[in-house]
Amino acid sequence: MLKKMNRGQVFLVGAGPGDPDLLTIKALRMLQSADVVVHDRLVSCDIMALIPAGVRRIDVGKKPDHHPVPQSEINALLLKLAEQGSTVARLKGGDPMVFGRGSEEAAVLRAAGIAVSYAPGITAAQGISAATGVPLTHRGLANSVRFITGHCQANRPLDLDWAGLANAQTTLVVYMGHANMQQIARELISHGLPQDHPVLVVANGTRPNESRLVTHLGALQIKRATIPVPGPVLFIIGQVVSLLDQTNSADTILQAPELQRVLHG
Amino acid sequence: MLKKMNRGQVFLVGAGPGDPDLLTIKALRMLQSADVVVHDRLVSCDIMALIPAGVRRIDVGKKPDHHPVPQSEINALLLKLAEQGSTVARLKGGDPMVFGRGSEEAAVLRAAGIAVSYAPGITAAQGISAATGVPLTHRGLANSVRFITGHCQANRPLDLDWAGLANAQTTLVVYMGHANMQQIARELISHGLPQDHPVLVVANGTRPNESRLVTHLGALQIKRATIPVPGPVLFIIGQVVSLLDQTNSADTILQAPELQRVLHG
Repeated sequence: MLKKMNRGQVFLVGAGPGDPDLLTIKALRMLQSADVVVHDRLVSCDIMALIPAGVRRIDVGKKPDHHPVPQSEINALLLKLAEQGSTVARLKGGDPMVFGRGSEEAAVLRAAGIAVSYAPGITAAQGISAATGVPLTHRGLANSVRFITGHCQANRPLDLDWAGLANAQTTLVVYMGHANMQQIARELISHGLPQDHPVLVVANGTRPNESRLVTHLGALQIKRATIPVPGPVLFIIGQVVSLLDQTNSADTILQAPELQRVLHG
Repeated sequence: MLKKMNRGQVFLVGAGPGDPDLLTIKALRMLQSADVVVHDRLVSCDIMALIPAGVRRIDVGKKPDHHPVPQSEINALLLKLAEQGSTVARLKGGDPMVFGRGSEEAAVLRAAGIAVSYAPGITAAQGISAATGVPLTHRGLANSVRFITGHCQANRPLDLDWAGLANAQTTLVVYMGHANMQQIARELISHGLPQDHPVLVVANGTRPNESRLVTHLGALQIKRATIPVPGPVLFIIGQVVSLLDQTNSADTILQAPELQRVLHG
């Protein structure tokens, strides 16, 4: 216990998909009790606006040269701030424990004796599900849901368990899949999913600039996406997409033509 | 639009895993603006306490004869309340769009012209992840996470894609798996996962009576669970369990002996 005296602590906080209403009460409280907030690029402005004035904010989404800040530098920064005695909120989009690298940061901090606690966040998939009425499971359409990342490290091929993924009874949620979606669609089809297997593509889910496109694997495998999308894009692949609540769509800004152009050229 | 005049509406609200701090702000607001709350048995007392006094509450978790209320009756009740003009909050544990049957209720309501909107909820898996420090994905240990239900309808065998599920690089979260865990463990081992593949078992996750047990597939396949567990039990199966934050465990009531007895006889 003595080792921890005068030390700070780190809250690993999930910001959710973007809509500040989807923060948990715990996340909001942690944000409002921190001395310093270390945040990613993808955290929405509306959520940043909930941080009290005067609290220091450090953006680790990008360095001045526009390159991302290496994970090792973020780890070192969190450690330094906590060792100075600060209560640090490390704010990440979605849930820090789902593709968030929160556990990598926590491991470094815990190894140095810094107390770490967590506020989970609504994942982008859940936020989009609630906004569109497309469930992640549904009796008869999907008895399971699986979250994967479609991103791979530089110069490494996308090496996924395609046979296991091509399961028509499982909703497949693909994070960071935009650049590789042509390959993903091709592999899923060649491992048994039908050409017309439905896909919901959402950019900037739950945010004012949200856009949605309903398409299918066959369309995604043909054209190559070449235009970068400004903001996070999520793919929900599965029969549940047929349950899209068209009445709700009227509430949101549909910018399908933009996504159509991005994905299908 | 005329059809909707004088009609009520239904909010499908995720209660999260039990800790009221894990409600989203949106869920809290919906709960506090409803005329009537229709709730499941598994919603925690601490969350029920957030509903304003005087708001009608209807428990559809159990009928007076202790049998569960059939889904068709719940659908009919929601429809009747909304058609009477009420603003109904349909409160479900976890996220209504993940094994929550929320989309079945929404389909009935929407077909009748009732407006449905949603507040997602933190899933039990996310709540437990945040409470234990066990991430759902982690570079090198799990590049994917999959949610399945281990429950099957009466007299039907558990028919799952075992080859796809037995993936050491995927965290497997099993809901309602307590009764069938012996079979699940046996199948996963026979399809290639090692005997010592780690499993975190949590009963009543994020609640004051939470209990946890760290075990492995080999142990779960041997003994048959015979004692009913009072409350929801979740299994997190995967290498990520090795990251359990032992320092955090001190904060919670560990009742491992009880779970040990339940699962291993």
